Amino acid sequence: MKKIVTLGEVMLRLSPPGNQRFFQTHSFDVEFGGSEANVGAALAYWGNHVAHLTAFPDQEIGWAASGQLRKNGIDTKFIHHGQGRIGIYFLEQGAMQRSSQVIYDRANSVFANYDGKDLPWDEVFDGVNWFHWSGITPALSKECAGLTLKALKEARKREITVSGDLNYRSNLWQYGKAPHEVMPGLMELTNVIIAGTRDFKQCLDEDFKSFTEVRNMAFERYSDLEYIVKTDRISHSSSNNTISATLFGKKKTYSSRAYELTHIVDRVGTGDAFAGGLIHGLLTMKPKEAIEFAMAAGAIKHSVPGDILLCSLQEVHELASGEAVGKIKR
Amino acid sequence: MKKIVTLGEVMLRLSPPGNQRFFQTHSFDVEFGGSEANVGAALAYWGNHVAHLTAFPDQEIGWAASGQLRKNGIDTKFIHHGQGRIGIYFLEQGAMQRSSQVIYDRANSVFANYDGKDLPWDEVFDGVNWFHWSGITPALSKECAGLTLKALKEARKREITVSGDLNYRSNLWQYGKAPHEVMPGLMELTNVIIAGTRDFKQCLDEDFKSFTEVRNMAFERYSDLEYIVKTDRISHSSSNNTISATLFGKKKTYSSRAYELTHIVDRVGTGDAFAGGLIHGLLTMKPKEAIEFAMAAGAIKHSVPGDILLCSLQEVHELASGEAVGKIKR
Amino acid sequence: MKKIVTLGEVMLRLSPPGNQRFFQTHSFDVEFGGSEANVGAALAYWGNHVAHLTAFPDQEIGWAASGQLRKNGIDTKFIHHGQGRIGIYFLEQGAMQRSSQVIYDRANSVFANYDGKDLPWDEVFDGVNWFHWSGITPALSKECAGLTLKALKEARKREITVSGDLNYRSNLWQYGKAPHEVMPGLMELTNVIIAGTRDFKQCLDEDFKSFTEVRNMAFERYSDLEYIVKTDRISHSSSNNTISATLFGKKKTYSSRAYELTHIVDRVGTGDAFAGGLIHGLLTMKPKEAIEFAMAAGAIKHSVPGDILLCSLQEVHELASGEAVGKIKR
Amino acid sequence: MKKIVTLGEVMLRLSPPGNQRFFQTHSFDVEFGGSEANVGAALAYWGNHVAHLTAFPDQEIGWAASGQLRKNGIDTKFIHHGQGRIGIYFLEQGAMQRSSQVIYDRANSVFANYDGKDLPWDEVFDGVNWFHWSGITPALSKECAGLTLKALKEARKREITVSGDLNYRSNLWQYGKAPHEVMPGLMELTNVIIAGTRDFKQCLDEDFKSFTEVRNMAFERYSDLEYIVKTDRISHSSSNNTISATLFGKKKTYSSRAYELTHIVDRVGTGDAFAGGLIHGLLTMKPKEAIEFAMAAGAIKHSVPGDILLCSLQEVHELASGEAVGKIKR
Amino acid sequence: MKKIVTLGEVMLRLSPPGNQRFFQTHSFDVEFGGSEANVGAALAYWGNHVAHLTAFPDQEIGWAASGQLRKNGIDTKFIHHGQGRIGIYFLEQGAMQRSSQVIYDRANSVFANYDGKDLPWDEVFDGVNWFHWSGITPALSKECAGLTLKALKEARKREITVSGDLNYRSNLWQYGKAPHEVMPGLMELTNVIIAGTRDFKQCLDEDFKSFTEVRNMAFERYSDLEYIVKTDRISHSSSNNTISATLFGKKKTYSSRAYELTHIVDRVGTGDAFAGGLIHGLLTMKPKEAIEFAMAAGAIKHSVPGDILLCSLQEVHELASGEAVGKIKR
Amino acid sequence: MKKIVTLGEVMLRLSPPGNQRFFQTHSFDVEFGGSEANVGAALAYWGNHVAHLTAFPDQEIGWAASGQLRKNGIDTKFIHHGQGRIGIYFLEQGAMQRSSQVIYDRANSVFANYDGKDLPWDEVFDGVNWFHWSGITPALSKECAGLTLKALKEARKREITVSGDLNYRSNLWQYGKAPHEVMPGLMELTNVIIAGTRDFKQCLDEDFKSFTEVRNMAFERYSDLEYIVKTDRISHSSSNNTISATLFGKKKTYSSRAYELTHIVDRVGTGDAFAGGLIHGLLTMKPKEAIEFAMAAGAIKHSVPGDILLCSLQEVHELASGEAVGKIKR
Repeated sequence: MKKIVTLGEVMLRLSPPGNQRFFQTHSFDVEFGGSEANVGAALAYWGNHVAHLTAFPDQEIGWAASGQLRKNGIDTKFIHHGQGRIGIYFLEQGAMQRSSQVIYDRANSVFANYDGKDLPWDEVFDGVNWFHWSGITPALSKECAGLTLKALKEARKREITVSGDLNYRSNLWQYGKAPHEVMPGLMELTNVIIAGTRDFKQCLDEDFKSFTEVRNMAFERYSDLEYIVKTDRISHSSSNNTISATLFGKKKTYSSRAYELTHIVDRVGTGDAFAGGLIHGLLTMKPKEAIEFAMAAGAIKHSVPGDILLCSLQEVHELASGEAVGKIKR
Repeated sequence: MKKIVTLGEVMLRLSPPGNQRFFQTHSFDVEFGGSEANVGAALAYWGNHVAHLTAFPDQEIGWAASGQLRKNGIDTKFIHHGQGRIGIYFLEQGAMQRSSQVIYDRANSVFANYDGKDLPWDEVFDGVNWFHWSGITPALSKECAGLTLKALKEARKREITVSGDLNYRSNLWQYGKAPHEVMPGLMELTNVIIAGTRDFKQCLDEDFKSFTEVRNMAFERYSDLEYIVKTDRISHSSSNNTISATLFGKKKTYSSRAYELTHIVDRVGTGDAFAGGLIHGLLTMKPKEAIEFAMAAGAIKHSVPGDILLCSLQEVHELASGEAVGKIKR
Repeated sequence: MKKIVTLGEVMLRLSPPGNQRFFQTHSFDVEFGGSEANVGAALAYWGNHVAHLTAFPDQEIGWAASGQLRKNGIDTKFIHHGQGRIGIYFLEQGAMQRSSQVIYDRANSVFANYDGKDLPWDEVFDGVNWFHWSGITPALSKECAGLTLKALKEARKREITVSGDLNYRSNLWQYGKAPHEVMPGLMELTNVIIAGTRDFKQCLDEDFKSFTEVRNMAFERYSDLEYIVKTDRISHSSSNNTISATLFGKKKTYSSRAYELTHIVDRVGTGDAFAGGLIHGLLTMKPKEAIEFAMAAGAIKHSVPGDILLCSLQEVHELASGEAVGKIKR
Repeated sequence: MKKIVTLGEVMLRLSPPGNQRFFQTHSFDVEFGGSEANVGAALAYWGNHVAHLTAFPDQEIGWAASGQLRKNGIDTKFIHHGQGRIGIYFLEQGAMQRSSQVIYDRANSVFANYDGKDLPWDEVFDGVNWFHWSGITPALSKECAGLTLKALKEARKREITVSGDLNYRSNLWQYGKAPHEVMPGLMELTNVIIAGTRDFKQCLDEDFKSFTEVRNMAFERYSDLEYIVKTDRISHSSSNNTISATLFGKKKTYSSRAYELTHIVDRVGTGDAFAGGLIHGLLTMKPKEAIEFAMAAGAIKHSVPGDILLCSLQEVHELASGEAVGKIKR
Repeated sequence: MKKIVTLGEVMLRLSPPGNQRFFQTHSFDVEFGGSEANVGAALAYWGNHVAHLTAFPDQEIGWAASGQLRKNGIDTKFIHHGQGRIGIYFLEQGAMQRSSQVIYDRANSVFANYDGKDLPWDEVFDGVNWFHWSGITPALSKECAGLTLKALKEARKREITVSGDLNYRSNLWQYGKAPHEVMPGLMELTNVIIAGTRDFKQCLDEDFKSFTEVRNMAFERYSDLEYIVKTDRISHSSSNNTISATLFGKKKTYSSRAYELTHIVDRVGTGDAFAGGLIHGLLTMKPKEAIEFAMAAGAIKHSVPGDILLCSLQEVHELASGEAVGKIKR
Repeated sequence: MKKIVTLGEVMLRLSPPGNQRFFQTHSFDVEFGGSEANVGAALAYWGNHVAHLTAFPDQEIGWAASGQLRKNGIDTKFIHHGQGRIGIYFLEQGAMQRSSQVIYDRANSVFANYDGKDLPWDEVFDGVNWFHWSGITPALSKECAGLTLKALKEARKREITVSGDLNYRSNLWQYGKAPHEVMPGLMELTNVIIAGTRDFKQCLDEDFKSFTEVRNMAFERYSDLEYIVKTDRISHSSSNNTISATLFGKKKTYSSRAYELTHIVDRVGTGDAFAGGLIHGLLTMKPKEAIEFAMAAGAIKHSVPGDILLCSLQEVHELASGEAVGKIKR
């Protein structure tokens, strides 16, 4: 059992049942999700101790959000409950040639206004092995960018390994700062970066001709960087993707098997399941095993409704090891 | 068939099914509702032509809101669709000794930022008999207060009867104005005021010892005022209320029967059903009949889920006339 | 265990969930029900052998109707499956002061066109103790009236006790015959008549000043008549009724306790549950016990969703005997 | 924004949830649909003004049907509400090697008995650009055939473009006329015919060896004919089809891309979505673009539950233009 | 914030939706509940630190049970996961004169076979203020009886206050011991006993003529006993109860207000909510306030679906203090 | 119409809706299923007379189980209702690379303790053509093994054809006997064995190098054996299988077409549908037709939710004969 801390917003997720469109639905399925907490929930399901740092409204819906994280095994003792609203995202599941669609309604949430000044960092990071953040948080507000930087510094001064999923979102960064004014300072403090070429371009406001160029730049520029991780997804349709991943070390590169995902149930949170698998893998396995484990976690998430990977270690290992799938387990 | 215009915000209403609490729910029933559009929907269900003035986001959820108004018979051609979010209210149905609970998340909605500058007033009010507003709209923002005043002036200059439900809400009025700085100017332009003593106190920032005092003040101060209408509700529990209403004319007073509402299905929108009944009554009946019709409309709404009274003229008339109730109609 | 035969149409029952109105529903709960089969189902649930005579379409929905009768314990071997449609009734559950509403769409059903010429009467009535019919069947069509008369004759020539629920429905009798042209011939062959004053008036096209007058006429006119049974219901609202029943023998009268039904779940089928209880009672108990058992069956049906009384003998006996109710049974 | 009028029956659609069979379901999902109104709804969703001509029962379920059309953006002011029943169709969704199944229960509906004598044609067709009918309407009854012919004449005398989907259904035409006694007179008045070889054969009671023969005959025989349109569908299973379409002008032929529809959600209404796309295309685009737009509309409908295409212009254009699909839109 | 430990089985609760009977249902609502954990969940919802001692199967359903306790705020770190089944109880909600019904299927559960030998008592009771048990646990098995005694001894030797809800269940005690062989030893170690006359009779196998006799006996016999608490419930029907409670100290007696519970939503767990309120009350209030708080908690639970009281401190206090109820809280 | 008897346990099947995992579900869909009764239900749906031998608890859930069998057309008159619990199986539907998962909770059920001593064998087997058993029953308990042997002897002494699905389940056989101590005696009395190599190995505790070896052994050793039947399934994923079957006679072998099952709805009960098809086929067709019919029945079951094949003879024949599939049937 390892000890991990994650940081980020958790939103109320509202989605029409089945394949209904927003225009026709008469109910929403209710979930709570957010990239970094999704990573944490995967890790907690596998028996790790995970604490998540976030902020919720201090009313019944905010309490339900905390409660759901606890159900998923996350330690919620550092979560702030304050005045304000919860961020919301509306998710319409695509099918076939119709894309899934997300409508964000996350501005002015309690988290977006949260600066984390009340966090007892010594306690937060006591005995912690890993800290995970994503590029969504610094994109929300000045307060959130400050909180991310503070958390990274506190983590690194305790020699905790840090992973960051750059996760560039063009509809964020509305608070007056451009990504390249903020992200480089955070990337410097990160040991494992999950990102593709486009994320690097946007976060650094630089141009790169290939991922190789990105990789060379990154290992040169960021002395603490241990790994860059990249997933490759081919979207045949909303229901059918092919996916694989590669782990780039300073010297060695490890590629995972590719998965044909022919009957996708829920695409959301699959990158987070992958990141969770990666952290668990790098904490407990060799690099090659780690990237296979991570990709298997990301692949099998496509079969689980909701934001969260709810698959046991055994299920992920079986898939990663190429065992026969699809038989009824009795 | 009369022609009526209503103005106000319509929100996305999200409520847990049955008697569930927010903390435990896994889905929300989806409705769209807002006080003034609820009034309009009741009037449209009875065959009147009703146009509603409001603003929605220009995306699928905003289109669904417009669509739902159309389903309820409302003319949506003057509705503005723009950038932004839809106001939301979360509703938890109470039961027995547990109160129903509303969590508002309506700040910064498209409507709250809407000034109605694009409205073609000549077309809006062409042939219109009645205009209805409520005290919620001017409480939302400077823009909304301005829009309300403009609509009132445009209506009254065309000699359209105006009703206003003062509907004081303490958790609104956040934009720098106090009610008494805004409401008196609107009340002056209103012919039928729906309000209790508390509403008058808050809107005028004056003290009144009794409703008689309120009534005397109002008919004296507002020369165009024709009626004040007041409902009286005794809340035995969330499931059981007693309700009646009184219509105060300058000279005469008309009281409705009282209704024992012993198995309440949905308390929300009952005041709006009453207001719709009142407008329909005053447009087509004598005052005594009008107040009986209005109170029957308000009473029977407690049996219908959702914000909207979906009861036919015949159903309301039968109840108002004291016919036997509760038998199966075949 | 007694052997009982019932005859009548079974319709597809479509009702909006909960207290929704037809105008707002997005789904229908599916049941199958019909007065006489409801009577049969109650009897079968108590362990009697019940065969029902009816006709359904010979397609999947008709098969489902037969299947549902079988689930409820009814012997379906004499049911005819033919070309055509199934009768439908749409049911909207009322609440409080709003009445429940039924929209019938039963014209031209397979049953309405069914004359029962294929029925093997010797086999149908082999060892049978009781036959039950209602005034709905002869009201549907010439064929159905003929079938009812035939069944009554076949039953009586085998000395089977016959009960008939007159159940006058003004919206039926569309096929060119008036009730008084058909019903008297059926009543003559009936030993136990369930009906109120209004039913007698309509079926005989005669006027009666009181139920006493009805009763005197009936026992005088119909020599085989053993009992008349009448229920009295006061409808305070859709959710709250008071109910009691009286069994009139030639010489003696037996009245049941009255029940306060303060939280009605489903009003439909309560008369059928009563009739089922009456038949079971008269077959196995003394008259006073029988009418108490019948009324308890009718009363407790108001708590069960759907057309059918699904309460055990023990539950009905406990209620009839006045045992404490409402505690959790563990 | 164009102005379009459509004519035809709208039925209550009742389908078991998910993949359930009729035999096992305990609820029906409720929709309202009909070929021509489905076409109209697609056009209205794209911002066109669409009025639909039909008839419904004058009770709550008929009002709900009208309301649903309004929600879908259709102008319902010319809809007749009268005594009688609503046509019903029961739909069981197939899966894999199991076919979808429709049970019709539409005989004797209000629409089937409707002759449209009350329609104010000048008002109906005021400013209208296009009128659409289908071969289902004249197949229902003498009244409906007469109404179709009347509408076509009224449209053509105002030089409105007319499209007709021949849509031969062998289980209709029960009222004493054969298709070839009625259809040729309607086809003569039609500018755009949607039909395959089989439809032409049945409607004309003639034999054709190939579609080329059909095409030559048609352009020769019908002087006002501008386009024939044909879709080609290969049904690998209920869940997996391949589809494409061709637009035949007098001189030129335009073929669309073929779509692999590998995870079909709802097959019903896909031809109507195609027809809607075709009308929108021919009204606003060049023929090649029009047939691509139409086929994209038809293809993406397979991903939307219900009878109606609820996809925006942008979504259809993106698919038609071959943009990458299946990514989450944020 | 106080620290409390509770001990007992948590079962999978399966109930038909709404008022359906077992015979007719096609789905079960899933909850997890058990008397002592229900007590703990109420306490946790109010901000206390509560750890629950129990055992679950080590598979997904057992993990879900643990997860649900965590969601409800309970510390699950001492919960044992082992081989075996989870106890189940099937609950059918009664209505009106029909009783609710529970079918237990709890034999041979992981908990029933659990002896708690692995529990680190020093850690379990570190800083703990209160321990709560019920008479259900020792009734399950020899192992469970042993575990209860051990827990009581460990608690009392650390001077932790102990409450016990005697809760006699005649269908338990199947393992060869009679209650009076086991319960007296547990009652001796208990400071606050919740029980009525019948519970005392059964647990002691003695006869008492009145509760006064019970009370005198108890304070005399059990030197550590501080309070006896008794609730009085009148069951008018499944939907309507009257309830009140009394707290008997050695010298003084405190009675609560009586509550009319006229529209009961869920009767299960109301005694546990009361017990939770009592513990919270005795830990933080004076006796009179405590019994009022406890009874208000028990009363308001009748409005919440599921086993658990999900009402805030503020809601319970408002009810206890007699504030007006049933208005919408905005 | 043939007469068939089946024997075996029927369990309560509880499954999360859609693709949800046990950990996240809040409701269970309720079905009743068991291998041999599933076989019987398929046969009954095709018009055969099928009686099933089993035992249920004598309470509402057991009655519902019986009722469900009756709905599915099964004669339940020989079913025993006694004290105890119903066996349960929890089923989580897999998707894509995630396997379906079954958690059994069937120990100590009424059936497991049932010895069938009360069965009137002369009546049970009166006029019966076929008896079917599976290897699950003798694996449950000594009583069940004895009952199976008794039934086989009674059947064979009346010259009834017997089929047995060996169906080895490693998690059963907990009662002190190994399969090879029990199964050979049962196989001797069986005319049609459905099994693969692994089943034979486990049941006989012998090793076989190939199915050919199995086949030779079996026809040599069991003089009454007429057919061995084997299905071959390739599991590409939980959503996509390829399947075919072979019927081995003493002299001739017949192979079915292979089916690509690309969008599996419910995998459970597909082997039982196959066995039902086989029995129907062997009773009414030639061997080649029989194996095609059986495999078509097994294939199309993958499209039907629940344990039971609910497809008509016509649907299975159409698929078996290779007719085009997937078009809408109107």
